[in-house]
Parts: sequence; C-alpha cells; structure tokens
Amino acid sequence: MRRAPLRCAGRYAARMSKPVRDSLELPERLLLGPGPSNVHARVRSAMSRPLLGHLDPAFLALLDECQDHLRTLFGTSNAFTLPLSATGSAGMEACLVNLLERGDRFVVGVNGVFGGRMADVAERAGAEVTKVEAEWGTPLDPGAMAEAIERVQPKVVAFVHAETSTGVRQDPAPIAEAARAAGALVVLDCVTSLAGLPVELDAWGIDAAYSGTQKCLSVPPGLSPVSFSERALDAVRARKTPVQSWYLDVGLLGGYFGGERVYHHTAPISSIYGLTEGLRVIAEEGLEARVARHAEAATALVDALSPLGFKPLVDAVHRLPMLTSMQLPDAVQERGEADVRRVLLQEHGIEVGGGLGALAGRIWRIGLMGENARLDRVEQLASALTSVLD
Amino acid sequence: MRRAPLRCAGRYAARMSKPVRDSLELPERLLLGPGPSNVHARVRSAMSRPLLGHLDPAFLALLDECQDHLRTLFGTSNAFTLPLSATGSAGMEACLVNLLERGDRFVVGVNGVFGGRMADVAERAGAEVTKVEAEWGTPLDPGAMAEAIERVQPKVVAFVHAETSTGVRQDPAPIAEAARAAGALVVLDCVTSLAGLPVELDAWGIDAAYSGTQKCLSVPPGLSPVSFSERALDAVRARKTPVQSWYLDVGLLGGYFGGERVYHHTAPISSIYGLTEGLRVIAEEGLEARVARHAEAATALVDALSPLGFKPLVDAVHRLPMLTSMQLPDAVQERGEADVRRVLLQEHGIEVGGGLGALAGRIWRIGLMGENARLDRVEQLASALTSVLD
Repeated sequence: MRRAPLRCAGRYAARMSKPVRDSLELPERLLLGPGPSNVHARVRSAMSRPLLGHLDPAFLALLDECQDHLRTLFGTSNAFTLPLSATGSAGMEACLVNLLERGDRFVVGVNGVFGGRMADVAERAGAEVTKVEAEWGTPLDPGAMAEAIERVQPKVVAFVHAETSTGVRQDPAPIAEAARAAGALVVLDCVTSLAGLPVELDAWGIDAAYSGTQKCLSVPPGLSPVSFSERALDAVRARKTPVQSWYLDVGLLGGYFGGERVYHHTAPISSIYGLTEGLRVIAEEGLEARVARHAEAATALVDALSPLGFKPLVDAVHRLPMLTSMQLPDAVQERGEADVRRVLLQEHGIEVGGGLGALAGRIWRIGLMGENARLDRVEQLASALTSVLD
Repeated sequence: MRRAPLRCAGRYAARMSKPVRDSLELPERLLLGPGPSNVHARVRSAMSRPLLGHLDPAFLALLDECQDHLRTLFGTSNAFTLPLSATGSAGMEACLVNLLERGDRFVVGVNGVFGGRMADVAERAGAEVTKVEAEWGTPLDPGAMAEAIERVQPKVVAFVHAETSTGVRQDPAPIAEAARAAGALVVLDCVTSLAGLPVELDAWGIDAAYSGTQKCLSVPPGLSPVSFSERALDAVRARKTPVQSWYLDVGLLGGYFGGERVYHHTAPISSIYGLTEGLRVIAEEGLEARVARHAEAATALVDALSPLGFKPLVDAVHRLPMLTSMQLPDAVQERGEADVRRVLLQEHGIEVGGGLGALAGRIWRIGLMGENARLDRVEQLASALTSVLD
C-alpha cells in the first residue's frame, strides 16, 4: 500500500505538489477553553494532503489503523469502534438512538449540560427518561444512580465521564456495575476524557461510548470516535423498529467501517488523515505519559492562578485534569468576566471558556488539553492574566 | 478582524508556524469517480491552518462569509443557509426529519440510489411515503409526479437534481411548481449539482436543499451545505412534536449559524476554513465560467472515450455534465470491469466509479467535478484507458 507517488500521475502530480498558499487571514490563538484545543503541527500537515477516494485500498488501510488506535484509547476490543462522520454531539445521538426505541426506559445522570443533553436526545427518540440529578460541580452519587436503576429497571443507563460544563470527573465503574447487575446497557460520554484520562470500556463494562477529536486528541473538531460492544450490537439487532436515523444507524455504518467496506456515505477523508496522524502522535508519546502530563499541567494551573484569586469549583478528588472550572476573583467579576475574556483573546491571543447554563457568568472553564497540557501554556496564561488584571 | 498575527502570541506562535511534516505515506490519485474530487491546493493549505475557537469573532466572520457564498451558489436569499457539520447524507436527513412528522404524507421521485435513500430516511421518520419511480438512467416524469402530488396531497415533495448513481439531470421547475400548487414543501437534493450546474432555489420555489462539499466544490468531504426557506422554517415551528434529531434540529442550528451565535455543537473549524477558501476560488472563477467548464469537459469525455467503445447511458438532453455514466465496451466486460478499474487505479493512479444498485457491474461513473472538469484530465484518462485495454 505504501509506495512512492506513481510515475504515471505525471503532469498532474507535479501541479498538485506545487506549494500554494490560501487567502485566509487568521490571528494566532492559544486555545485554553473547553475545546477545540490547538492541533499538533503534524496533524495540520496531514489535513492538507491530497485526497484518496473513500473506497481506495490505500485509504482503507489508513482507516483500519485509525480504528485500531481508537480501540487502544477506549480500552476495548470492540470490533465496532470507528470515527463517526460528525462531531461529538452526533456521537451521543448515535449511541442513544441505536439503543433506544419508543417507550424504552432510560436512566441518565445529570450534573451538567451534557447529561442534560443526553436526556433531551433520548426524549426525542421517544424514551421514558428518568433523570438522576446532582448539583453542578459535584459528581453523581453512585448510590442514587443504583437506586434509580433498581427502581426503573431501564434498558439503558447513561452518564458523563468528564463533564465539560463543570469540570467534574465521574468514576464509571460503580455506576456501570449497578447497571449491568440490573441487565441494562451502559452508555458513557468520553468526549473530554479520551486520551487525557484512562478510559477502560471493557474493564468497566461499558456498552457504548462516544468522544470528540478536538479535546485531548488535539485534532480538529468534526469526527466523533464511537465504540459499541457486541452486547450493544445484539440489542440493536433485536429492535422492533428501524433506527430512526439513517446516517447514524450502526447496522449501516458497520457495513463500511467493518470488514466489507460497503459504501454508506462518503467518509471525510482529510479529517481521517488528521485523526490518524494525531493518533500516531499519541501512540508515540504513550498513553500513560500523556495522562501524567495532563495531571501535572492541571496542578500547575491551580497553583499559578491561586495568587490571582481564582479558586477551583470542584474538590480535588473529583476535579478533571484537562478542564478546570475556576470561580472568579472579585477583580474579574467587577470588570465583567466576558470583558476580561475578550481582552485576553484580543490582546493576548488566549481563549478561555465561560460558564454554561447554571454556571454562566460564575466560572471560567480553562482547558489544558492534548498539546496544551504543558507548563509553558500555564505560564503564558498566568502572565497574560496578571497583565490584564494589573 | 483581519490583522497581523498578534505580537503577544510570542514563543507559541513561533513554534506553531515551524513547518512540520506528517508521517502519512499516500499514493497520488486523480479522482474521476462520483466524488470526492481532487481538492484545490489553496483549499488544502486552508485545511492546515491553526485553529480558532468556534465562538471566536475572527472565526465567526469567516463563517459569515462562508454562508454568504453558499447563498450565492444556491441562488437564494434564505437566511438559514449553512454548512452542516456532517456529510451530504446528513444534509438529506436534516431536510427530511425537520419537515416531516409521524404520519405526514411524503411524495418522492425515485430513479436511482439517492431518491431511494430519501424514501428510507422519510420512512424512519414515520412518514407515509409514496414513491414515484422511473427507470434508472432516465429522468422522473413531471406528469407522473404531478399526478401523485394531486392524488396524495403530501406535506413534502422531494427529488434529486443530479442523480449521482445514474448520471441523470432533472429539471426542477415543473415538479416544484406542481408541488407548490398543491401547497406542499419542496426538497431538492443538490449534492452533485451545486457549483457545476446552475442552482436557483428561489426562482424554482425550493423550500429546502442540501449538497456536499466533495463534488463540484472540490473541497474535502465532511460538510453538507443546506438551505431552508422561511416557509420551511415556519413549517418546522408549527410542528406538533420535537424534531427527532437533536444534532440536525434547524431550530437549534439556527441559534449558532444565525445572528445569535449561541453554542450548539463545536463547529468543524478546519473544514469550514477549507470550504470558505474553496468558495473564494469559485467566486474568483465565476459561476458561469465554472458551469461552462463542466459542460465542455463532459462533451470532451464522451468524444474521447467513444473510440474505445464506451457509450453514455443517459440521452444527451438529460445527461449530467459533472458525472457521466458509461455503458461498458465488451473489452472491459470480458476482463471484468472491477479488475479494469483496479488496474487503472493501481498502475495509473486514476479512480473511476463503478455502478451502484441496479447498475452495479453494468456501468462506470466518470466524474469531472470541480477542479477535475478540465480537458487535460480527459486526455489523461483516455490515454490510460487506451494503454490498459491495449
């Protein structure tokens, strides 16, 4: 598959390889919000490569490699592990609309925006939704989840591993165990955790999971890595009605992303180039080293911003490494937090995220994800903030 | 918005602008199948640019420009005109699941794979589907469509402008007129036609349309330009039930892609860079010149392959310029058409498409789309084919 450019491409190849610049004029940004994060230069190079067809054997070999890397990151041997051709929210929808039919019972943990979004998606699929809520900034109570599972006897249980709206980390094992004990399928949102925290779908007993590329993978947004267990695929096969979405139907997706490589839709070639290159970068660093780097950067961030009066919203045990939600000092609140973020962006080229939903105006969300989980980014932010608030 | 890179980005900017190569080893291909087509070098350069955040004012200005260009291509003043964050098939699904509710009547023209796909998507949304069929390789009969519309009195009528599975061109005006006369909404598939044929949504009276980026736009696959008229949006607002898809809900999408720029999902930044640059390339060439170039290339293709025994499936009046379906000469059939395509790909670096569905094994689909609608590509294909079949 890997060979030198074909001699016969001739004139055409010569023209295509001539360096040509685009006409875009874009400022430089250090992206320290809740995603996207900055993309590795090798990934950006991969995004710019000439296309192959989506059924070209050379492209399919690359896709095989991409899917293998994703299995490693997800900690799974699930054959059905693939980059869905849409963003993380579509990955969420794919997991829920394949597993749920009208009238199915669904228990979901809601302690932030993304648990709430799962409830919305499931309601649109006609499920009977039971929400187990916890205060934003705190984790779900596994006991409360187990109680609801026991009472409702749902077909599907879902919750978020790393809640991007609050910065809270959830331990998946106890909730998954309670769900499996009741015979339920378990869906886990790994959008922000994948490649920044250990993810172990098989060890935890997760049946379907989804992520995004623009967080700890440091790849542009546009794809959603998803994985379904055999148990989950059996449940899809046993449905009484067709999956409501043609685009997200795992039966049809499996035809292309499985061994047969039957045309379903045109895969986003360049995005898969970028993702595969990004996964090679991650493999070269090693997952353990990458996870350690995220932890180290998060600690440094809290230390560096503490003198400026920023306080983490979440207690240390449940705090995410890749995304820290910070309560704002008076100096920021008095100037208007959105104004301070605007100055940080426009004069220092640094983006941080505001709060969402119940936490809008009350916190900032500072991401040190993937390529940005490094001490020099922490220093750069602390220095810029010191200057802005001076 | 357009300013020099910020001085304060400093060390970071220096590191990000250092040229770094990816590790991918990819053959060169001339993509003359049904899409993707080869991407303009300026677009590939744009795909590799460092990211902005999806709420960054500099990115939103670029998105405004992108949406304006799309309105021009679609021939519409529809405010709701945007690049959907998924491929063309998701654009199809977006049009249908927003406009259809369970029990709604739907009339669809089916003379190829993509009309059939619309029927499938609509059935999954619970619509009562009436198919008006025509032989593959021929256009829909506007009279038969009008008769079905009159009889069924549907909420929505849909058909394909340029049927990628057969190479047939449909005149949209008569069918749209019959549908509007019956008070129905009209959906048009413009996946393969946009930027290669004139598209005039407003003049034709189309209420919702979708396309893809990987055909005549010569941009990588991954986005679906879609447009909804005010009349279509009113119909969505008047629904009795929520749109079944959260990801494709035009009410939610309008919050981000409209004036308010409220977070819905993370827009695929790099893909929108690529699309916007591709739309600038198209604007510089001019739509008329581009359409003329497609027509000229298609004529040259038929002339060049005729001596080898290839015959167009579709009569000249209804034949698409950007995609020609060719009946195969005995010399190709005897060697096995898939084998001949394999040799063309592996030894000459040229991809052409096989037939789909009823036409599998019987035709080739030869695309001269966007950047590839040029006479030198025709010569290159004719020369390679002559050599392979010699």
